[in-house]
Amino acid sequence: MSARPSGNGSYERDLDPAIAARLKRTPDGLVPAVVQQHDTGEVLMLAWMDDEALARTLATRRATYWSRSRGEYWVKGETSGNPQHVVSVALDCDGDTLLVRVDQVGVACHTGDRTCFDAGVLPLADAARP
Amino acid sequence: MSARPSGNGSYERDLDPAIAARLKRTPDGLVPAVVQQHDTGEVLMLAWMDDEALARTLATRRATYWSRSRGEYWVKGETSGNPQHVVSVALDCDGDTLLVRVDQVGVACHTGDRTCFDAGVLPLADAARP
Repeated sequence: MSARPSGNGSYERDLDPAIAARLKRTPDGLVPAVVQQHDTGEVLMLAWMDDEALARTLATRRATYWSRSRGEYWVKGETSGNPQHVVSVALDCDGDTLLVRVDQVGVACHTGDRTCFDAGVLPLADAARP
Repeated sequence: MSARPSGNGSYERDLDPAIAARLKRTPDGLVPAVVQQHDTGEVLMLAWMDDEALARTLATRRATYWSRSRGEYWVKGETSGNPQHVVSVALDCDGDTLLVRVDQVGVACHTGDRTCFDAGVLPLADAARP
């Protein structure tokens, strides 16, 4: 795929310098991306992008992340068959978080759940305490 | 407020050890929290919680974060007058992200926007490129 890094270590897509200048990255160069189903509003997952992943996402409209566990770019759905078609991308007021609104094909979570949050509801106190 | 740390450095609320064991934290002990308006689905902001902030949030149902910039706990709305009443909290499949569904009073963003993403839409390519 042309959106993959070239073999010589250079990148095929550069992020617009005006956007790059607005990003506040973690020490390892990443920005968290909240991924939301564009029509239902479901929060599907949180992933991470570096400049190149963001550039690829904006250029291809296929959600592309940096996998911290695998240390490589990750075009969502390329192996699972459940891609995310990007509808919009927004940077927050501080420049340190992205909101990626997508059309998720199938499920977002590797467990088979629609979202990564479906199975993890935590207990709240029955009533607010001061 | 009783939800503040006590003066001797101990904490007034401890996180359930069963929940604490599921959390995967950043090197500085934090977990990102995606904050969503419970009925409209708007993603309002992303904030950070440590164990204590999560414990307070679950116990008080008032969204409470760790402010990385100020180095202190932050009960959302305590200074702005725009609190977040917590409807549900879920941990994701990997244990490294929280989804906090709230009823946001007023605006979520310090800029006066409803969400922190309202002003930051980035340009997408006109059509997908392979």
